[in-house]
Amino acid sequence: MTKTNGRRLRGERARAEILTRSARIASIDGLEGLSIGRVAAEAGVGKGNIQVLFGDKESLQLATLEKAVELFHATVIFPAMNKKTALAKLLALVEGWFDFVERRTLPGGCFVNAVSSEYRARQGRIHDRIVEHRVATRERYRRLITDAKSTGELRADVDVEQLVFDLVANEAVANVAALMEESEEFERARSTSLGRIRESIPLPKRKRPQVPRRSSKGRAKDLSS
Amino acid sequence: MTKTNGRRLRGERARAEILTRSARIASIDGLEGLSIGRVAAEAGVGKGNIQVLFGDKESLQLATLEKAVELFHATVIFPAMNKKTALAKLLALVEGWFDFVERRTLPGGCFVNAVSSEYRARQGRIHDRIVEHRVATRERYRRLITDAKSTGELRADVDVEQLVFDLVANEAVANVAALMEESEEFERARSTSLGRIRESIPLPKRKRPQVPRRSSKGRAKDLSS
Repeated sequence: MTKTNGRRLRGERARAEILTRSARIASIDGLEGLSIGRVAAEAGVGKGNIQVLFGDKESLQLATLEKAVELFHATVIFPAMNKKTALAKLLALVEGWFDFVERRTLPGGCFVNAVSSEYRARQGRIHDRIVEHRVATRERYRRLITDAKSTGELRADVDVEQLVFDLVANEAVANVAALMEESEEFERARSTSLGRIRESIPLPKRKRPQVPRRSSKGRAKDLSS
Repeated sequence: MTKTNGRRLRGERARAEILTRSARIASIDGLEGLSIGRVAAEAGVGKGNIQVLFGDKESLQLATLEKAVELFHATVIFPAMNKKTALAKLLALVEGWFDFVERRTLPGGCFVNAVSSEYRARQGRIHDRIVEHRVATRERYRRLITDAKSTGELRADVDVEQLVFDLVANEAVANVAALMEESEEFERARSTSLGRIRESIPLPKRKRPQVPRRSSKGRAKDLSS
């Protein structure tokens, strides 16, 4: 390994360690609660180090946001997306979100939900990046629901936008409830989200009233066999 | 008027004016964004005046929270509670909440929702007071829904806790969406809340399936009159 590579590697490790700490701080106190001085003190390094590694406060805040999103990707999204079907992915994503918050993977729960509230009425780069993450979250749900409809895992008459909205609304209320120790509210959010998905699943064919249909030969065959 | 009364009155006016400003600041930047120096500067008074009127920072924060809640009471709750029936009160309360946020009565929307997120993972007097307001909000909805069921304005099989949860969840997501200028999301929150109430209303006995009206406002007006 060359000298330069070694230095870069050490820099990357230091950066990652500092961001792990800053993400934990900001998940509780908000991205506005981050200051170079505070992060330096809690990470046990000099303020100069933080400045060399991140530049100004806003860059530290942006890097912290990305670190927190990365953690959610690794813990929840990546394993969910490895499931086989669109419905399995969707369920794993929803369950994964509630588990992530319940287990305090970050002490303040879901980072994007928290900073969405913090930056809802502010302008600037941080606000804009949060909006992008919000859009991506909804788009992920939208795509999975649409896919699950097209494969028949979800009913054809499911209102995609309404289901996306319901899932996102339940997460918004649950992220506050979890930390406020309103566990009943948190559990209701989880069961409401899973319930909305479950009621969108077509009933199994066998449970339908066994009236023979004349129009479909295939169907008649099934029933007679 | 005695000298003492005059002084007290001036003090009360000064207090009210300062709190109006601090509520506007905190609705955007959070209660942590309030400092005696900043409020003094924006209100054009000396820091000493703020200290005499409010004491320490936490007392200013608590007084600001109460001022914001008071404003919501005067603008939304009080007029809603003057409606005649439980259902009319409920609809006025839900519509009033969305109007309050949409019109930026406070620039940051609903204060209790915003500071709930800010203080969800902090301890102390401010957190505890926010919890009390959250409990009161849910209790208000719970009571109105229960009353409306008992008078037959809402169906007997309506799940009270689920409806309370849905209304509160839609407000949580809408308060962020409104300020993020996600107007589609905001409108969906409003129509989902009003839709959940509307589907809880018994169908009229003679008229068979009723075509739902598109204008939620019109509908609410009809019911409250």
